[in-house]
Parts: sequence; structure tokens; C-alpha cells
Amino acid sequence: MPKTAQLTDLVIVGAGPVGLFSVFECGMLEMKCHVIDALDAVGGQCRALYPEKPIYDIPGIPEISAAGLIRRLEAQAKPFGPVYHLDQRVVAVTPDGGDRWLVETDTDTAVNARAVIIAGGVGAFGPNRPPLEGIEEFEGRGDGTGVHYLVKRSGDFRGKKVVIVGGGDSAVDWVLSLAEVAERLTVVHRRDKFRASPESANKLKKLALDGAIDLAIPFQLAALEGDGGRLRAVLVRDLDGRMRRIEADALLPFYGLVQDLGPIAGWGLNLERNLIGVDPATCLTNRPGIFAIGDIAAYPGKLKLILTGFSEAAMAAHAAYALVHPDRELHFEYSTIKGLPGGSN
Amino acid sequence: MPKTAQLTDLVIVGAGPVGLFSVFECGMLEMKCHVIDALDAVGGQCRALYPEKPIYDIPGIPEISAAGLIRRLEAQAKPFGPVYHLDQRVVAVTPDGGDRWLVETDTDTAVNARAVIIAGGVGAFGPNRPPLEGIEEFEGRGDGTGVHYLVKRSGDFRGKKVVIVGGGDSAVDWVLSLAEVAERLTVVHRRDKFRASPESANKLKKLALDGAIDLAIPFQLAALEGDGGRLRAVLVRDLDGRMRRIEADALLPFYGLVQDLGPIAGWGLNLERNLIGVDPATCLTNRPGIFAIGDIAAYPGKLKLILTGFSEAAMAAHAAYALVHPDRELHFEYSTIKGLPGGSN
Repeated sequence: MPKTAQLTDLVIVGAGPVGLFSVFECGMLEMKCHVIDALDAVGGQCRALYPEKPIYDIPGIPEISAAGLIRRLEAQAKPFGPVYHLDQRVVAVTPDGGDRWLVETDTDTAVNARAVIIAGGVGAFGPNRPPLEGIEEFEGRGDGTGVHYLVKRSGDFRGKKVVIVGGGDSAVDWVLSLAEVAERLTVVHRRDKFRASPESANKLKKLALDGAIDLAIPFQLAALEGDGGRLRAVLVRDLDGRMRRIEADALLPFYGLVQDLGPIAGWGLNLERNLIGVDPATCLTNRPGIFAIGDIAAYPGKLKLILTGFSEAAMAAHAAYALVHPDRELHFEYSTIKGLPGGSN
Repeated sequence: MPKTAQLTDLVIVGAGPVGLFSVFECGMLEMKCHVIDALDAVGGQCRALYPEKPIYDIPGIPEISAAGLIRRLEAQAKPFGPVYHLDQRVVAVTPDGGDRWLVETDTDTAVNARAVIIAGGVGAFGPNRPPLEGIEEFEGRGDGTGVHYLVKRSGDFRGKKVVIVGGGDSAVDWVLSLAEVAERLTVVHRRDKFRASPESANKLKKLALDGAIDLAIPFQLAALEGDGGRLRAVLVRDLDGRMRRIEADALLPFYGLVQDLGPIAGWGLNLERNLIGVDPATCLTNRPGIFAIGDIAAYPGKLKLILTGFSEAAMAAHAAYALVHPDRELHFEYSTIKGLPGGSN
């Protein structure tokens, strides 16, 4: 049984960039938020999958790393005192009997709120793991050796023999980034064609022509060699069954993400494939008081840009205001006029 | 007769924050832009009316001055080589006979474009001038004396005797900002009540109680005293006709803005009061190839936030892509993958 529920104005499901900005938008309208995320830190995919990647399309920020953006959004939310519940998944969202919602997680956190904003991105997500026997024993090493599904710090791979597998954007981008860092870098791909931008694919081919990287094409992963959790080599096989052995300290397979809406699928929301249909004027779902914003929200013309999610955060916050403060009229004010809590403006 | 029209992909009407960000969004989709604005510099109201005011609700930027935001948006647009036509007003937008638009200004600039994005804010705008005889002769001085309708640099008023007239947000905010800077500051208002946030109005009253500023309430402007363009005093009158003379180097009347859609009203667009109705999925107006975004665009649920305008800029750019590049399929890409022109990513 969950403990006594904590009372708040809004629960935000998802602590990615759009969830964090929702805290700010709600805060500007004097609404308190609790934020729940399955990951053990805020930032969603930005921090977990591509923290060092530059983002160019945040208005007023010509270039920022994904992790840098998250740090700033967290700082922007902070004056409003959000309560974070991390490393836990929402398992149930149920009416509390009145006009509020009870939100419960798999670690027995229970929050009672007037409204819920789902900023769930692609839902819970994780890397697709290559089907290799014993791959788990090489995972989770912090020294840049073994098997890694994402790059937290390029520097970890300095001086290492690295094998990157895959032909999509992530694989190609990391080849370009790590080519200078690794002692030796080999790209394994089952086809001759890369699904990356032409510019990036050409750069990769030039690196190969210059001898700066090795290509193993068309090859697929066959087995790993090593012991005691220490990787020694990657074995790959071509279409005719011929094997090749590549010495390796580290293997980075980029086989895409498994996406999983998880328990959200059971909350009685209108789903369109893996997305939640919302009213584009408010981001309200079919259940009163439950909003969805960001990549998980669908409506005609929807663009899956961080920027769009930020704008939807403002819409949902304004729409939720009438529920949280039914007695007050929302006097629309610009941020230049209103200022921040504790600010001098 | 206009000169030969310059050819481009898009014309953006309005060089405020949303117009500038449109250049970036269009540029990311490989579309070239010309930008037209009635003011003689980019930035719209942000630069012309409140350059020093802090803005808090740009995602990832906890605080930035309006002018600082404009500088950054201009830098973000720059790699895409926009052509600016400033200090001129669009007087006609007419079909060119094919499927493009001819955009003409009052200085005979003519641009031929496949699509037009109106990011016109409140339309052309200017201060309401108090009906005082001879007020023009005190306007336009750069030394912080005379009559000013906006504050470009607070420092200009250092050590000056300043009279601020009005009871709205702008008047009250500038009273709070200039109270420390001015040698003496007097607030003239025709009513006892200020139409500013309660917090700001209370701060103003406290300054008056502490003797840091003077109040002339309920008084209205009656006349100006001075010669050779040099202001000496402001004469005010109460409801019973009693006069009062206030020594002054500078007068700052905040009587609100005159807003004027101007020629836009004649372009055959669906107008809703002073706004342009658009399809919320694309920001397309009722005329094919003409989009409207930002404060001037209206649809159900519309929030007049800079942030909303940024998101609309992305929508309009994506919708315009099909017109500008009918032969290409838009392969949706994130900015992290695509990179910028000339960038290394």
C-alpha cells in the first residue's frame, strides 16, 4: 500500500527538457509541481543518450550541448521548488474520488494533484541490445572498456581500440567524434549504405580512405571474446559466413532504441499508435485534468521539436490554471512584467 | 515604379524576435529569406521599447535583457545570410501572375518570393503623444533631457530631474528603475490607482512614503516650459483646475502605444479585430503562401508569448518548405543531426 499521498497542484510525468520547462511555466502561474521520471537523473534522452551533442534550434541559443541545456532548464525551474521523484515509474493514475488525481509509482510514492502533465517523450526507452551470448558481462564498465550503448564522455575512449556497429545517425556521428580520440576505430555495418546525412556519411568515407578508421562492411556482429568482463576482441561475420576478428577494448553498438509507453497505455487515454492525442488549443487529453505535451503528444501539424514542446508546456500550464485556481481569473502577464519569485522586478 | 524585383524563397515581414527566428528555421530547411521592417534596426518592440527589460521565459535562458535576446537571435540567423530591408514599410503584397508573391515597400524595394511570413507583432507601432502644444520641440534629444517615450539607456537620466506620467506597467516599472538613477523623480498620474502588478504598485507607494520619489496625484499634464528645445519644467493641473509646476530636465510620458496594422489590412487576409486568423496546424492564412505567426496570428487557444511565436516560426517554415521545394521530400531531421552551414557536425 502506498504511503499517505503528498498533496500538490500538478504532477509532471517526465523530467526531460519539456517536463523541466513545465515546472517553470507552472511556477510563473503560481502552481507547484512534483516531477516523476524513470531515469535516476533529470534530463531525459538529452542527458542519458546524447549529453555532448550540440543543439542548434533553441531560440536565442545558437549552440548548446544537450547536457548544458538541461542544466539551464533545471536552474530555470529551481526558484519554483519542484519536488523530484526519480528512478521510479508511474504505475497508476486514478481519480481520487473528488476532482483530483492520485499518481502512484513503483516505489510507492503517491502524489495527489489537481492535474497531470505527461511530458513523456518516447515513453520509457532503452537501447536495443545485440543478440550476443554473454554480452551482459561486458556491460556497465566506467573505464571506456567493454560494451556501451551510449557515450557519456568521449574522453573515456581515448587511446582505446573501439568498434562501432551500425549505420544510422548515432553510429556515424560517434565515428566522426571518436575517430580522433580512439587509438584505433573500426566501423562494422551490414550494408554499404549509411542512413546518415550525406555530409556526415561522406566525412566517414573520407576518414576510411585516409586510413584514419577501418571499415568492416558488410559484416555483422557474431561474438565477443574476452574474460572476467574484460573485452579483448569482436568477431564479425559477412553474408557468406566468413569470420573476421577485430581486436577491441570497447564495443559501441548503435541498434536504435526500444521505446515503450509502458503503464501510460493503461490510463484510458486516446492513443494514436504510440502517441497521445490532445486538443491542440490546450494539450488536454480525453481525460479531464490530464494533459500531454512534447514528443508524446499528437495533433494535426505536430512537429517533434524541443521548441514545440516548450510552447506546449506554456499552453498546458495556462489551461491547467483554471483547474488549480478555479476561484482566480488568470490575468495574462508577460514575464518582463511579472518577474520571478524573490526577484527585484 | 519599383526596380526589378529581387528573387528569394521567403519574405518575412517584421524583424522582431519571431521574425528573426524565422530566418533561422527557414535556413535550417535550406530556404533563403529577405526581412522587411518599418523600424531602422532589427528587434521590434524588444529593442525599440524595452531593451533593458529582463525576460525570464525563454527556455534555457533564466534571464536575459530584451536587447540581449535580439543580439543572440540575430547571431543565430546570420549563418543563413538573410537580406534585411529596414526603415521601410511593406505597401503591397500581390500575386506575381505565377505562383509567387511580389512584395513592395514604400522605398521601392521589390522582392519576389514563393511565400510570405508575416511576423508583424502588433503591426506598426508608436507611442501615444500627449496633446501638448509644442511638445515636438523637446523630442529627440540624446542627452537624457527633453521628452522621451521610451528608455534606451537608464544611465541617460542619471542626475536628472525626471517626471514620469502614467499609471500602467511601463510607467510604474520605469519609476522603480529610475528612482535610484534620477536626481529627483516625480510621478504624475490622473488617478490614485495604478494598473500595474500589485507587487510593483506597492513598491512605488513605498518609495513615495520613504520620500525617495514625489507623487503628483490626481494631476494631468497641462503644459511644458522651456526654450530652445531645453525643458525647464512640467506644468500639471488637477481636476479642479489647480496648477502645479514641477522642475524637470526630462519628461517620460507613458500613454500606451498606437498600434496600426497599416497596409496589412488591405492584403485580403481574414482579420479578427486587429489579428490575422490562421490554421493552427500550419500558420497558413486564407491566402495560399501567406503565413502569419507571433502576436499578430490568431487561432483558438493562442497564447501571446514570445515562446509561442518561436514555435509558430518552426511550423510556418516546415509548411512553407513544400511550396519552396515542391520537388523535394522533407526528411525531418533534428538540429543535433543536421548541424549548421559551414559547421563541423
